Amino acid sequence: MFNVQRGQKVLSNLKKNDLHQSLISDPYAVYYLCGKWIFPGERFLGLILKEDARPVLVLNELFRFEEEIGVTKVYFKDGDDLTALLRPYLNENETLGVDKNLPARFLLPLIDAKAASAFINASFAVDDARAIKDEEEKEKMRRASLVNDQAMERFTKLVKEGISEIEIADQMLGIYKELGASAYSFEPIVAFGKNAADPHHMPDGTKLRVGDAVLFDVGCVVDDYCSDMTRTFFFKEGPKPEAERIYELVRKANESAEAFCAPGRKISQIDKTARDIITEGGYGKDFTHRLGHFIGIETHEAGDVSQANPRIAEAGNTFSIEPGIYSLEEGVGVRIEDLVLITEDGVEILNHYPHDLRVIG
Amino acid sequence: MFNVQRGQKVLSNLKKNDLHQSLISDPYAVYYLCGKWIFPGERFLGLILKEDARPVLVLNELFRFEEEIGVTKVYFKDGDDLTALLRPYLNENETLGVDKNLPARFLLPLIDAKAASAFINASFAVDDARAIKDEEEKEKMRRASLVNDQAMERFTKLVKEGISEIEIADQMLGIYKELGASAYSFEPIVAFGKNAADPHHMPDGTKLRVGDAVLFDVGCVVDDYCSDMTRTFFFKEGPKPEAERIYELVRKANESAEAFCAPGRKISQIDKTARDIITEGGYGKDFTHRLGHFIGIETHEAGDVSQANPRIAEAGNTFSIEPGIYSLEEGVGVRIEDLVLITEDGVEILNHYPHDLRVIG
Repeated sequence: MFNVQRGQKVLSNLKKNDLHQSLISDPYAVYYLCGKWIFPGERFLGLILKEDARPVLVLNELFRFEEEIGVTKVYFKDGDDLTALLRPYLNENETLGVDKNLPARFLLPLIDAKAASAFINASFAVDDARAIKDEEEKEKMRRASLVNDQAMERFTKLVKEGISEIEIADQMLGIYKELGASAYSFEPIVAFGKNAADPHHMPDGTKLRVGDAVLFDVGCVVDDYCSDMTRTFFFKEGPKPEAERIYELVRKANESAEAFCAPGRKISQIDKTARDIITEGGYGKDFTHRLGHFIGIETHEAGDVSQANPRIAEAGNTFSIEPGIYSLEEGVGVRIEDLVLITEDGVEILNHYPHDLRVIG
Repeated sequence: MFNVQRGQKVLSNLKKNDLHQSLISDPYAVYYLCGKWIFPGERFLGLILKEDARPVLVLNELFRFEEEIGVTKVYFKDGDDLTALLRPYLNENETLGVDKNLPARFLLPLIDAKAASAFINASFAVDDARAIKDEEEKEKMRRASLVNDQAMERFTKLVKEGISEIEIADQMLGIYKELGASAYSFEPIVAFGKNAADPHHMPDGTKLRVGDAVLFDVGCVVDDYCSDMTRTFFFKEGPKPEAERIYELVRKANESAEAFCAPGRKISQIDKTARDIITEGGYGKDFTHRLGHFIGIETHEAGDVSQANPRIAEAGNTFSIEPGIYSLEEGVGVRIEDLVLITEDGVEILNHYPHDLRVIG
């Protein structure tokens, strides 16, 4: 069903930029607004939002559906003239906001036909709305992370000497599905020993040995919303002293940044809180990525938690806090990641799986 | 290495339409021209082709490479002003051809900056070049289909009573890799019995029973080129009389269409040759899709083999011939598919796996 509140948020974001009509073509944005998944592949999909007008959903007849969702449905066939079809719903004397990914093959004919007075990338209007979760979304984010907490505990039971990363990874989707998830939110990272020092390592045939770090960076989709969490364990034996110091530095960076989160805080300062701790500990150059990313219907939504983000945290933001140290010299990598939700007066940490250094197996 | 002959073909296709500069952003098109795979994700990638100028490849520094490939490499960093970067390489007094999928977030700033006098979807220039394979490509297409022939024979050995579609599908990638392929060209279709009557059936838990049709629609990538073949077998017992008649109709449709292929033939007539045979046999309504598609670096390249394609076949075209009959009444589906290469004086069928009705298991 078309979500009127979300539609109003998008229109209000447009209006702040003196825009009054928008053509939304990203399937995730269409789902956010209409509650309907339509993946049109190479074909056109567009939701036209205008002030004081019923939303219009333009889609190929291949994706026809009968259910009433509070929008005017306009169908086309392969070969139809899309520009002619869209024109009656657009105001040619106003600028049209379009999606940042609208392909040239759809955009250029609209420009040539002067279907609007100007064209502008207006993805920010939906992105900014999506960045502030409503109550229904918050509840879904909590449930997805709860399943992820439960799954993490199950994953720790899979380790045994000689098992390979890929053999563990191959069991994860089944466990997620048993716990009520529909899919991965991203391909899981399982990294043993030195592989944990590569932040983007993909599971391979590496076999688990006593004393190895065991890094799980994992997430699932529950009710169309994503979770994402990382824990780093050690197998059978605790880490060497320097690796333990690295672990505790990362833990402190994670917990300090999470404690700093609150509405009104600069996003860049949240990143800096974690980064300063790691830098002061001597590992600044080994924390090679941003602290986190926004998340919701997609694992990576608009918004970095980094030095480059000039924005302020707002109630309803959900993002990851995932400091890491990747030390090839020490042969160890540690990352500890939770999702957080900015609340009216502080922060709710959506993951409850403990941070303490844990020896498993 | 930048392929000068292919670059000339693209420029010549542009010139026929009075275009003299093009910004090519599709990673497959960039690979076709430069022999280099760059998947930029959300970041910009562009190859600027102009008459009498060295090609310019614009890419994010994340994808930096040292090898000399005969193009001027221009790197940018996240946050750089792309339009300013591209301008010196574009002629602002000429129309710029752009890729059909160039996203609005890259296209609109170029338009606003008047970086060219006009902008047009010029994907046809690369698509038309890619539709006519050169000798190197023909050889790669032959090898990919040869591996597919060998794999098909191996796949027929996997059947046994009670095995599920997914259990067979799960073994296919390993077999392809043993035979020298790098990947699937598409997720394999394995369909037993009535499932074969769904042309897009995905392998599931259905178990094989005596007398079932066994449809394999499979393909692999060898040296970056794709194969694609379908055969329909019967398990342990031959088909019932009407199913056998359906099989022979599809076989005749396939072989007649393949025999009709030659340079100068209308593509639509190739489709019609197969379709008429099936229609005259009484199953026209059960042949629910186009006869085939062009293929090369991608499994589906520009160009349908259908009634709607007004073009004529040219030497160097490679496409699939895949008639099918999907009869829910008879509880059977049959499809027989080969790839063909149009030659100077006729056709070369790239698949050599026999068409005869075969009982396996």
